[in-house]
Amino acid sequence: MGAYGDGPKGFKFYGGHVGIKKRKKDFGLIVADELCHAAAVFTKNTFCGECIPIGKENIKDGQLQAIVVTSGIANVATGEIGRQNEYKIMHQLSKKLDIEATNILPSSTGLIGPQLPIKTIEDFLSNQPIKLTKKYEDFAQAILTTDKRTKVRTVKIGEATMLGIVKGSGMIEPNMATMLAYVLTDAKVSKETIYPMLKEAVDQSFNTISIDSDTSTSDTVAFLANGHYEVKEEQIQAALNQLCKELALDVVKDAEGATKTMFVTVKQATSKEQARFGAKSVINSPLVKTALFGHDPNWGRIIMALGKTQGLIFDQDKINISYGDLPIFSNNQEVKQNLPLIEQYIKNNEDVYLTIDLQQGTESFQAIGCDLSYEYVKINSDYAT
Amino acid sequence: MGAYGDGPKGFKFYGGHVGIKKRKKDFGLIVADELCHAAAVFTKNTFCGECIPIGKENIKDGQLQAIVVTSGIANVATGEIGRQNEYKIMHQLSKKLDIEATNILPSSTGLIGPQLPIKTIEDFLSNQPIKLTKKYEDFAQAILTTDKRTKVRTVKIGEATMLGIVKGSGMIEPNMATMLAYVLTDAKVSKETIYPMLKEAVDQSFNTISIDSDTSTSDTVAFLANGHYEVKEEQIQAALNQLCKELALDVVKDAEGATKTMFVTVKQATSKEQARFGAKSVINSPLVKTALFGHDPNWGRIIMALGKTQGLIFDQDKINISYGDLPIFSNNQEVKQNLPLIEQYIKNNEDVYLTIDLQQGTESFQAIGCDLSYEYVKINSDYAT
Repeated sequence: MGAYGDGPKGFKFYGGHVGIKKRKKDFGLIVADELCHAAAVFTKNTFCGECIPIGKENIKDGQLQAIVVTSGIANVATGEIGRQNEYKIMHQLSKKLDIEATNILPSSTGLIGPQLPIKTIEDFLSNQPIKLTKKYEDFAQAILTTDKRTKVRTVKIGEATMLGIVKGSGMIEPNMATMLAYVLTDAKVSKETIYPMLKEAVDQSFNTISIDSDTSTSDTVAFLANGHYEVKEEQIQAALNQLCKELALDVVKDAEGATKTMFVTVKQATSKEQARFGAKSVINSPLVKTALFGHDPNWGRIIMALGKTQGLIFDQDKINISYGDLPIFSNNQEVKQNLPLIEQYIKNNEDVYLTIDLQQGTESFQAIGCDLSYEYVKINSDYAT
Repeated sequence: MGAYGDGPKGFKFYGGHVGIKKRKKDFGLIVADELCHAAAVFTKNTFCGECIPIGKENIKDGQLQAIVVTSGIANVATGEIGRQNEYKIMHQLSKKLDIEATNILPSSTGLIGPQLPIKTIEDFLSNQPIKLTKKYEDFAQAILTTDKRTKVRTVKIGEATMLGIVKGSGMIEPNMATMLAYVLTDAKVSKETIYPMLKEAVDQSFNTISIDSDTSTSDTVAFLANGHYEVKEEQIQAALNQLCKELALDVVKDAEGATKTMFVTVKQATSKEQARFGAKSVINSPLVKTALFGHDPNWGRIIMALGKTQGLIFDQDKINISYGDLPIFSNNQEVKQNLPLIEQYIKNNEDVYLTIDLQQGTESFQAIGCDLSYEYVKINSDYAT
């Protein structure tokens, strides 16, 4: 698993500046040489972007040949004009690339509310040549907003290659799918299995992370396979799971203002759902997040966050809480002597592991999140103004 | 409705330093001359403080004569030792005040985890005289933790007086009841009606506010009536509702690090629950809160927070969103010309009113919250260390 390896066979890319942002790249394309089997999952935010219903429609037949991304403006809550603008882009691209508009998946990310500068985009598409290339770095750049860096992973599956590109660093608590993430492979995946394969991978990866408990309106994870190489399905699934986990972690690592990544595991819960709710409640608590930022092993806030989880069954006498290998709460008591060691552990590690063992059942869930820093407040109070 | 008026007849107070905190007052008492009719609501956090089950037991017969508050340590997650410490305090107080221990309501607030310095408290109670007085300022001071100021309200109901004292400025998203709040009156309230009266008032006040979406482990709202004056029940209910609203607002005004108070009303929802979920989702969104801190009319984040509300029924074409009287989103479009005016409105007002009109039904709910500032992060990353 490495970053910036060769991409899969049969895919080309573009990333450039059309004029949505002031100077930075704001327009990206992925174009496959032939029609691919494809699946996608979309945000569950019901106030979703104009791209989302178009994307859902176009993916219905399980086939795609291109992806277009505009960044800087999300084209959300823009009404009929926003919808028509999206169709205009699709229509012009279709002509330019000689690909059916219904085989293109559109995505948009950025500010909610403003209209796209459609005249500028149309002029660009009419007049400027678009040079597609095997290199995907410009595309990875073009889809960013508040991200500090591009997030790209590649993996080999026998002869085949799988490439994943993701953007996202705020407004992130996936519900089903989140952010913009594209996974491309030249391996063969059948039309019937491509969606369940993606769903399995997304549930184990993007759906376990949370940066700020806010679910974005535009988010999409798409998986395209053009079928050049025959590879065993289990190998593809394993690679896809791994790649999505790496990409999801890349997103958390680039979380707005974050200085730490926290892995919260709730173990021995009576159900998977309880384990998930508990872990998410801890990772989303502003008080847990600010304590993490302050290198403060304030486990009291952890049990507060557990206690406020609706319906979580636990027994205070049984719960064990540990940072790394160091117990901090056991037998309904603080393990006081470990406090200075845990403070050091938090201070010295970028990745902080927190385990909450309920000793009630057999199910577990790991949620991945980050701290809440001055910088998060700065980034998000300065974003639009 | 004013602050620091005369208290109700028949109640005395104490606030002093016993040694839980380093220097500040950390021990408070309310003592009634005779047994009062009483009701209380407690935190729904299942990982609750050691005081909570004792308080629930003692309030069962609808009678109380005293309240004891220790601040600085919350006595939460302290196991059997913590429970026994609480009983020791109750036992000694009972002797000292000549009041049945079962007629005393205990409360604790502060750090979760550490044990109370029980020896120090017992020594104090054995050796120091406790001078009860009609003045309640010291008590209001003694129950504070990160609060910047005492929060006290009084109201006259005919000849009778109602006094409310509250503490709280963080870990605040009430679920049924929150924080420490005490309401005392010398009016007569029957044993049967005192709980429903309190419940009605709390639902309209404390249960509408949220500072950081975290539900505390120790919170209690108690209402004591000693029956000196006969006043119409409707008058008492009205005064109680009003007093609780004022106290709840006082808590938000003292919110950790807050620079603004935001009143979010969701109108014309299909159910009360939907209106509440929608308003709470908006008030709790870190992105909405940081935008408010930055005086940024970023309504896109508002619709994001609406959209992520599970089960909220709305029609994008019908929603109207306004700051004060200024529409910002209408007919599925930004009302662009109002943006600079709204920026000014947010900048110039400490109280910011946001109205989301769904135009779907008849139910509405107002949630009250605050912004998320550097100072919130500072306070909560520095708290224990």
